[in-house]
Amino acid sequence: MELKNMDKIVNLCKSRGFVFPGSEIYGGFANTWDFGPVGVELKNNIKRAWWKRFVQEPPNSYGADASILMNPMVWQASGHAQSFSDPKMDCKSCKQRFRADNLVEEFSKGTVAAEAMTNEELEKYINENKIKCPHCGNFNWTPIRQFKLMFETSRGTLEGEKDVVYLRPETAQGVYVNFLNLQRTTRAKLPFSVAQIGKSFRNEVTPGNFLFRTIEFEQMEHQTFCKAEDAFEIYEETKKRALQFAEDVGLKEENLRFHDHDKLAFYAKAACDIQYRFPIGWEELNGIHHRSQHDLSKHQEYSGKSMVYVDPVTNEKFVPTVVEYAIGADRLTLAVLCEAYDEETLENGETRVVLHFNPAIAPYKVAVLPLQKNLSDKAKEVYSLLAKQFMCDFDDAGSIGKRYRREDEIGTPFCVTVDFETLENNTVTIRDRDTMQQIRLNISEIVPYISEKIIFN
Amino acid sequence: MELKNMDKIVNLCKSRGFVFPGSEIYGGFANTWDFGPVGVELKNNIKRAWWKRFVQEPPNSYGADASILMNPMVWQASGHAQSFSDPKMDCKSCKQRFRADNLVEEFSKGTVAAEAMTNEELEKYINENKIKCPHCGNFNWTPIRQFKLMFETSRGTLEGEKDVVYLRPETAQGVYVNFLNLQRTTRAKLPFSVAQIGKSFRNEVTPGNFLFRTIEFEQMEHQTFCKAEDAFEIYEETKKRALQFAEDVGLKEENLRFHDHDKLAFYAKAACDIQYRFPIGWEELNGIHHRSQHDLSKHQEYSGKSMVYVDPVTNEKFVPTVVEYAIGADRLTLAVLCEAYDEETLENGETRVVLHFNPAIAPYKVAVLPLQKNLSDKAKEVYSLLAKQFMCDFDDAGSIGKRYRREDEIGTPFCVTVDFETLENNTVTIRDRDTMQQIRLNISEIVPYISEKIIFN
Repeated sequence: MELKNMDKIVNLCKSRGFVFPGSEIYGGFANTWDFGPVGVELKNNIKRAWWKRFVQEPPNSYGADASILMNPMVWQASGHAQSFSDPKMDCKSCKQRFRADNLVEEFSKGTVAAEAMTNEELEKYINENKIKCPHCGNFNWTPIRQFKLMFETSRGTLEGEKDVVYLRPETAQGVYVNFLNLQRTTRAKLPFSVAQIGKSFRNEVTPGNFLFRTIEFEQMEHQTFCKAEDAFEIYEETKKRALQFAEDVGLKEENLRFHDHDKLAFYAKAACDIQYRFPIGWEELNGIHHRSQHDLSKHQEYSGKSMVYVDPVTNEKFVPTVVEYAIGADRLTLAVLCEAYDEETLENGETRVVLHFNPAIAPYKVAVLPLQKNLSDKAKEVYSLLAKQFMCDFDDAGSIGKRYRREDEIGTPFCVTVDFETLENNTVTIRDRDTMQQIRLNISEIVPYISEKIIFN
Repeated sequence: MELKNMDKIVNLCKSRGFVFPGSEIYGGFANTWDFGPVGVELKNNIKRAWWKRFVQEPPNSYGADASILMNPMVWQASGHAQSFSDPKMDCKSCKQRFRADNLVEEFSKGTVAAEAMTNEELEKYINENKIKCPHCGNFNWTPIRQFKLMFETSRGTLEGEKDVVYLRPETAQGVYVNFLNLQRTTRAKLPFSVAQIGKSFRNEVTPGNFLFRTIEFEQMEHQTFCKAEDAFEIYEETKKRALQFAEDVGLKEENLRFHDHDKLAFYAKAACDIQYRFPIGWEELNGIHHRSQHDLSKHQEYSGKSMVYVDPVTNEKFVPTVVEYAIGADRLTLAVLCEAYDEETLENGETRVVLHFNPAIAPYKVAVLPLQKNLSDKAKEVYSLLAKQFMCDFDDAGSIGKRYRREDEIGTPFCVTVDFETLENNTVTIRDRDTMQQIRLNISEIVPYISEKIIFN
């Protein structure tokens, strides 16, 4: 497959209302993006599909939604407060800040494994190779300093107090600290899973590549609590389910692959990513991690609360092991947009831009188009009927051909056209986005016709 | 109606998995709450119902989802950076911080309109009446200082730079700054509406009353852009629609009332709240505001970008007026919980706690209960069938009566019991939460039976 052009996708997103640069009228705000009318529907549909697959359908699966702002001790226990940082250097000439490992990686064109290098090794390499500032071209670096990735804020409820509060860098800890509450209220037996969708924040200064890496992003994280001896099997099963979901949501098998991690965190027993072939190359779409008893043990240690689970059959007592599956909703939305994007040459030689979304996650399910303006009243009746059931667009401006093209560009799977025959016999044409074929249906048949085709299975 | 007991509702929420105190194992984190398995479903269903009513169904209505972190100029333009603050005093003895107007209001038992007093008047009243610290009992106050309600953080991407970035205190500005993008990509004509659901943050130090006031909360905000001369009519219509929605979601008419604002912001032409009779008394549930051209004019002024709309028929050029309807998803969830909570005395004299949720927003739509453990396999088959369609609970522990009670306490509208007759003829009993009546249905009839009853209309 030829790599698709990211610029074209970004431009389509801006021009059709998927995504706008954050705070654009004020010159933007680096690595933030705002979802427009069709973007928010697309992302919501992806989140709902994920929730259906990982919370609704499987037994022993539950949802949760913890706060973004948490007691700072949480990040001491998790280790983020101590070590969640990147090695940064400032250019003394232009004051821009860069990741030292990125400088080495870009200079060496990926031939050097910068990620595995110590700060001393990075500094040595940069000095020996006289790597220049990508912004101003000077070679005038400060030493490397560790730059915290967590955003810090403060409550300041007590006078003079400088209490540091973090914006969470991941949602997972909100589930771990609630383990006892979750197990108690669900009375679930191991293994059971808890999923959460929510915003996380990381103070990234690296280039974002559109929605790929942003300072604020929505995570979909799924924790399975289990016995240590079951964890590898659950890890393998989670890999399969994660891959299956990526395909179900519309990503092609040939653009997905597993990638085992070279280096594991000291506590991890196994870790891999699913990578997607983005226009910028193969990159991480989601991660699956066998995290051992690390998370609950750490919270037990720092909170003094016992995280011990008592097996109701064997009476064994132990701290559960965690298998995590984490995926970014924004990044997945980007992958889905990239996969769906297509430029087709029509018989008349024109190019049609079309987004071939899975109908289950398409922003609008159907558009209602009166063939002429004087059919608008009838078309509005049809709109009212359909809008009770689905997200439904309405468009009466321009030629019908142009309107079909606009719906193709936002991936609307069905277009219902109200014409003069509609006034006579209550039938409409319904056009399929992918085949561009039309059939004629009675108005009463539209809802069941579409309903059946937009189920996420 | 007798006021319900907030403590009982909080306790039920904690014991049944609706809501847990934030970061509880670390002693909590003031005014934060985490949603548990049934809480997250309830809140999600409320958000979806709102989205259906205010984005999906009406024509000329669109969704959006802007970033929490925005260019700091946004908050200069909106005025929040200059004036979004509370008058605070610190107790010099115990270092606790309080809102001066709250001290006066509580001392005077609401007989003094503290909200309308200047800082000088507040200080004078507190000194004359020797109002003591509610925490330590001393009278030892600092002067009043304005305490910013916006949380501050920093990107720090440039060396030495101390750039202040705010956590948004409301979602509305994300729609205003995108007005041009939204209008351009939807090609919508005035009046049109844009709705957004998202997290906002306010550094409140006042007592939260459970979900009523939290430092982090989810807003559902709806902006209608219109001509100045249409705004009052739209304001009145929005009031009606907001009230209707509150009733549709399950709040009783007699517990809802309009409350016009006594004082208007200098730019506002009209403003009112819908109040709900919470267990803590009549309090604001949502606000509706005729905001004049203030918002778009301010962003035009600060950004230098023209916010002028050109009427396609009359060719008039003007900055649109905004009518806003804002409601807190957490606060509405609390109202729904309070309204639904009931204690009924049964014929046998026992008390049944039941949540009479509108079935459309109940966390679980149905629970599958095998009458005995050895019917679990058949019950799991039924679960698999139903879980494809609905959030579905499964419970095989304890007597059937106890299991019905547990489902009543989380408001599950239907309980399907698999018994020995099921093995013979594939029928089950289905029990109605409110009437406690049971009927017998074929397994194939359950999905249509429930589907019809859980539509949000």
